[in-house]
Amino acid sequence: MSYQNWLFVGVGAGLVSVAVALYLFYWVKKQNAGSERAREVARWIREGASSYLKKLYTSLGLVAVILAFIIALVFSFNLGDLGSSQITVNSGEGLRVAITFIFGAICSAVAGYLGMSVAVEANVRSATAAEKSLNQAFRVAFYAGSVMGLAMVGLAVIGMSTIYLATGDPELILGFSFGASTLALLAKAGGGIYTKTADIAADLVGKVEIGIPEDDPRNPAVVADNVGDNVGDVAGMGADIFDSYVASTVAAIMLGAALPNQSDSRYVVFPLILCALGIIASLIGIQFVRVGKNGKPGVALNNGTVITAVIYALMVTALVLFGGYDKGALWATLVGLVTGVIIGFTSDYFTSDNHKPVQETAKVSGSGSAINIITGYSYGLISIVPCVIGIVVATLLSYYLCQASGTLSGVYGIGISAVGMLAISGMIVSADAYGPIVDNARGIAEMSGMDHEVIERADVLDSAGNTAKAITKGFSISAAALTVLALFASYAETIESTGFALNLSLRDPIVIAGVFLGAMTPPLFSALTMLAVTHNAFDMIEEIRRQFREKPGILAGKELPDYNTCVGLAAQGALKSLVLPAFIAVGLPLLVGFLLGPNALGGFLGGSIFTGIVLALLMSNAGGLWDNAKKYIESGTFGGPGSEAHKAAVVGDTVGDPFKDTAGPSINTLITVMSLVSTLFAPVIAAFHLF
Amino acid sequence: MSYQNWLFVGVGAGLVSVAVALYLFYWVKKQNAGSERAREVARWIREGASSYLKKLYTSLGLVAVILAFIIALVFSFNLGDLGSSQITVNSGEGLRVAITFIFGAICSAVAGYLGMSVAVEANVRSATAAEKSLNQAFRVAFYAGSVMGLAMVGLAVIGMSTIYLATGDPELILGFSFGASTLALLAKAGGGIYTKTADIAADLVGKVEIGIPEDDPRNPAVVADNVGDNVGDVAGMGADIFDSYVASTVAAIMLGAALPNQSDSRYVVFPLILCALGIIASLIGIQFVRVGKNGKPGVALNNGTVITAVIYALMVTALVLFGGYDKGALWATLVGLVTGVIIGFTSDYFTSDNHKPVQETAKVSGSGSAINIITGYSYGLISIVPCVIGIVVATLLSYYLCQASGTLSGVYGIGISAVGMLAISGMIVSADAYGPIVDNARGIAEMSGMDHEVIERADVLDSAGNTAKAITKGFSISAAALTVLALFASYAETIESTGFALNLSLRDPIVIAGVFLGAMTPPLFSALTMLAVTHNAFDMIEEIRRQFREKPGILAGKELPDYNTCVGLAAQGALKSLVLPAFIAVGLPLLVGFLLGPNALGGFLGGSIFTGIVLALLMSNAGGLWDNAKKYIESGTFGGPGSEAHKAAVVGDTVGDPFKDTAGPSINTLITVMSLVSTLFAPVIAAFHLF
Repeated sequence: MSYQNWLFVGVGAGLVSVAVALYLFYWVKKQNAGSERAREVARWIREGASSYLKKLYTSLGLVAVILAFIIALVFSFNLGDLGSSQITVNSGEGLRVAITFIFGAICSAVAGYLGMSVAVEANVRSATAAEKSLNQAFRVAFYAGSVMGLAMVGLAVIGMSTIYLATGDPELILGFSFGASTLALLAKAGGGIYTKTADIAADLVGKVEIGIPEDDPRNPAVVADNVGDNVGDVAGMGADIFDSYVASTVAAIMLGAALPNQSDSRYVVFPLILCALGIIASLIGIQFVRVGKNGKPGVALNNGTVITAVIYALMVTALVLFGGYDKGALWATLVGLVTGVIIGFTSDYFTSDNHKPVQETAKVSGSGSAINIITGYSYGLISIVPCVIGIVVATLLSYYLCQASGTLSGVYGIGISAVGMLAISGMIVSADAYGPIVDNARGIAEMSGMDHEVIERADVLDSAGNTAKAITKGFSISAAALTVLALFASYAETIESTGFALNLSLRDPIVIAGVFLGAMTPPLFSALTMLAVTHNAFDMIEEIRRQFREKPGILAGKELPDYNTCVGLAAQGALKSLVLPAFIAVGLPLLVGFLLGPNALGGFLGGSIFTGIVLALLMSNAGGLWDNAKKYIESGTFGGPGSEAHKAAVVGDTVGDPFKDTAGPSINTLITVMSLVSTLFAPVIAAFHLF
Repeated sequence: MSYQNWLFVGVGAGLVSVAVALYLFYWVKKQNAGSERAREVARWIREGASSYLKKLYTSLGLVAVILAFIIALVFSFNLGDLGSSQITVNSGEGLRVAITFIFGAICSAVAGYLGMSVAVEANVRSATAAEKSLNQAFRVAFYAGSVMGLAMVGLAVIGMSTIYLATGDPELILGFSFGASTLALLAKAGGGIYTKTADIAADLVGKVEIGIPEDDPRNPAVVADNVGDNVGDVAGMGADIFDSYVASTVAAIMLGAALPNQSDSRYVVFPLILCALGIIASLIGIQFVRVGKNGKPGVALNNGTVITAVIYALMVTALVLFGGYDKGALWATLVGLVTGVIIGFTSDYFTSDNHKPVQETAKVSGSGSAINIITGYSYGLISIVPCVIGIVVATLLSYYLCQASGTLSGVYGIGISAVGMLAISGMIVSADAYGPIVDNARGIAEMSGMDHEVIERADVLDSAGNTAKAITKGFSISAAALTVLALFASYAETIESTGFALNLSLRDPIVIAGVFLGAMTPPLFSALTMLAVTHNAFDMIEEIRRQFREKPGILAGKELPDYNTCVGLAAQGALKSLVLPAFIAVGLPLLVGFLLGPNALGGFLGGSIFTGIVLALLMSNAGGLWDNAKKYIESGTFGGPGSEAHKAAVVGDTVGDPFKDTAGPSINTLITVMSLVSTLFAPVIAAFHLF
């Protein structure tokens, strides 16, 4: 089969994927939406969520248009005329890049919007189904999650394949990826700020000050809290993997295009074929995710992931052996896939209550919250070690195995291993998006006064979601690491293709300066998003207190609180807080590049990758660890709920909230966006820079 | 004056410095040691401290002898015969390197021991002097601090100058530096674990559980807590700057020796001349540290630093202009000096209660300890930014200004700027060591029941000490950054001098792998030392509770608690916890080098520098910020002592304790030791490595 035909297979797989997603959406909507009370609660959440998304997409649309305009302008100049005569770049394609940029942003937005829409429909239906059986509730939640997973990979592959079919120009796919990632970053960071603002404010006034339970409808922030779970965890979270998915494919395509001695473009198209096979494997794997009568939902989700991975591995092996591809490409794919799964399960060690880190943290909580925090933070630091070793091994193996093949370059191997990891994102995202849906189902069951038995079932579903989430996080961070390493390599290739003699030696002071500046960027970005959370939560706490004070009927249960004010506060606060982080992601790399030159910018990207990965692992794992240490104590150990140890663990959990849901997961996307913008503007920077 | 004569000036300045230190020691001992009660309290602390130091130095002596033996063995082979024939190294000097290694370790130990000894004599005398006047108490404490500062720089300069006079071989000074730094690292980390174990345990049982004040003699851990202030903050802290002081000088000497086209060794000796001038400037500057009748001790300390810096700058300018040195060397010195002072005062912004970070953190404390911690942590992350920019500017300026001179290399400029910063360490350490002495004086005043007025005076002295400490920390971290960059350069020079073609490009996967492995090392090291604190504190809390339970007479004030058990627990725990961190510092770089080769080891050093500096800044500044946010609330704002905000701020302060006093300050020394061991073993690694 010629490589061109494979592109049609990709488009076909993408269309099937989107079609299945739409069918499942339709199926979910057909399910019983429950009692009048439950419908009302669900309506509040749905309206809050869509009002936020409208505001978000309006702002982001504006940002996208401005960026597209700049891109169109910059890339319309013939740089060869203006800059150094030695440097030649493609010019005059400004409009085309701008259009693909907008196209990427729209695909990312549609996938997120679809995921959100189905999530807010699914949560109430999953809760209602839980009145009948665990199995039925699980199906509703998981299929709803699959809508997000399948729509995402489908749209991504359709977008990339059609662009390549139409133009054959990898740089245009880069524009697509940049659009998708920029939108994803803002959706992720904004959603992360929104969700934790509402969560912390609702908990601190509701649970701590007033003493009403979680998800109590008397709490004015309870709707904002539930909206937050959707905009932060569903719409935002999917973006986390989506942007790595597209970016890794683009990086591999560009590295493939840079391979010497190619008779055809088979290695350029190879990453897209991997994506297509990953979609097919995911579509099959999803069928196997079923919970028996007394089955365990967590096991079902993990089985789905493993089955998908195995089917995918078999298909890639067949492709390489019978398609006449070099075996190095197969090794790189398998290295990525295996490493991704292993690292995923490793992070489970640090965040699951079956192992020492969580248990030890829970145990020392009896000595106060400070000791809980120091211990959890320290284990978070240690959790960096196995993941980094995994990333190092994957990098070295994929590089040298691919290089040893003779026809392929080592960096192409790194790119392929990232794609190999991310190709099964359809399944991974489905399992991940399931989590916040059942979390919300539990909230709705509580708010609409369902039976205790239903809430217990929802708890079982929720706990499975947490495990799936922990595994996905380890997976997505390691995938992002390989992706940005591949992007880093294609940045270097792009700079050199202009004729600039790139020097990234750590002995050059300008490279060292770049690395230091890059190294401080992820910490700065994290700090800004976390300060946004505490700042906005502080405002919302005042608003909740005001409502309780001015309307005593709320606490008595005679009067409905004003949910909308809190929803609006969270939305406004989140959007306003995005300005500076957005500048850091897009503007800072360009500033470094134009001021200090391509060598410094290369160092900058390297530095941001190193501290970015370290910080992302620390924050995600420490956050998950604190969360589960609290739940472990709530399960009755070390004094159980209400004990001093429990109070200490609640503080740790609250510290971990913005770690794991705001700052931590945005860092991946941050470093991806910085790498993409640098690679896209590389030819311009090579032509114009101050030093 | 010939360069040889300057070495004698160095030795002379060193001897004068040590002599003045001994005189001041004698002067301090002559002061009134106070009432019988105060003498008794001081005796407990002195005995606890010397029992810990004896144990520490016994263990460290053993470690030093083993390492010396290995060094003697390894460097006695003629590597040219065994390894690749292309690689030539100096061989047969094993014994000489081993002896200088032991010499360095002894100098470091003597300086620390002297500092400790005078500190435990001075605290009670400063408290007693505070009964008469603030001025007199300040003098006792500051002169005692100067004993440490002057002894340290004196011994260092004597050691380095005599080795160079006797042998003319920079590699032997490297051995001296490695010995000094290894001892410093273990003293620092051990002291940091000791002091926070005792501090946290004493506070959690005493202040939180039982409700007795800080420094109450009924608390069985109170002596261990006060001993900890001495072994952690005095003996350990001085080591922090001492090892940078020696290491920066060695790095500059080695880079000077690698300069091409030298008629004499003037640029090899230049760093030692800078040290000698720095000592002279410090000796003069110390005279100006005086508090008038109603003067402020903080102002007096800062004045001393500024006057010393100005005198030093004038002397260096004269030296370069009239000594026929290249002006590039002057610029590099001044760049280092100015940057050090600026960064020092910048960190004051993040940790002083006159500015937004501390005030904002104090303000949000009303919403609970989690919000306090998230806010403080975020500002800690932001505090990285100005310091990193300062380091970057200093690196680039010193490199390019020195390179532009024509005769000097750029990396020599970086080395000189580090020495330029650290040459006035005599004054800096004096001001820093003053802090824990007055802190202890306050404790003794409380424990021996002195007047309220005396305790208030001690508080004023203590607060000045905290500001001095914050400035010193910023100073020492930025100095360490330049030092390790210079060491990094001399590692590269050493590897290349063996004929190995070093490649440190970030495009090489083995370098990337090294950087990732290096990047995870400071987090791992920090986690191990902090877990040691919580682990040991947990044991000590049990012991304190046991004593209160079994001897009710203690709380009634009728029976003395058993102080010694707590002192012993803290000491044993700290020493046992050092094994793994010590392996990481010395063994891990060698492991990476011998397994993955010189390129990976270069990456490893780079990675450890990048995350090490970022983490050290975060931990030191966040810790100081939480401490002062608590004190700000205690001064009566946002509810004052006993309020909910205060309780929240106490949790933040406790989290910050191991950040700023255990993990944070050890990281500098960790990366210095790793750079030194790599440079020392560089010729061997170049000859033997697996990949």
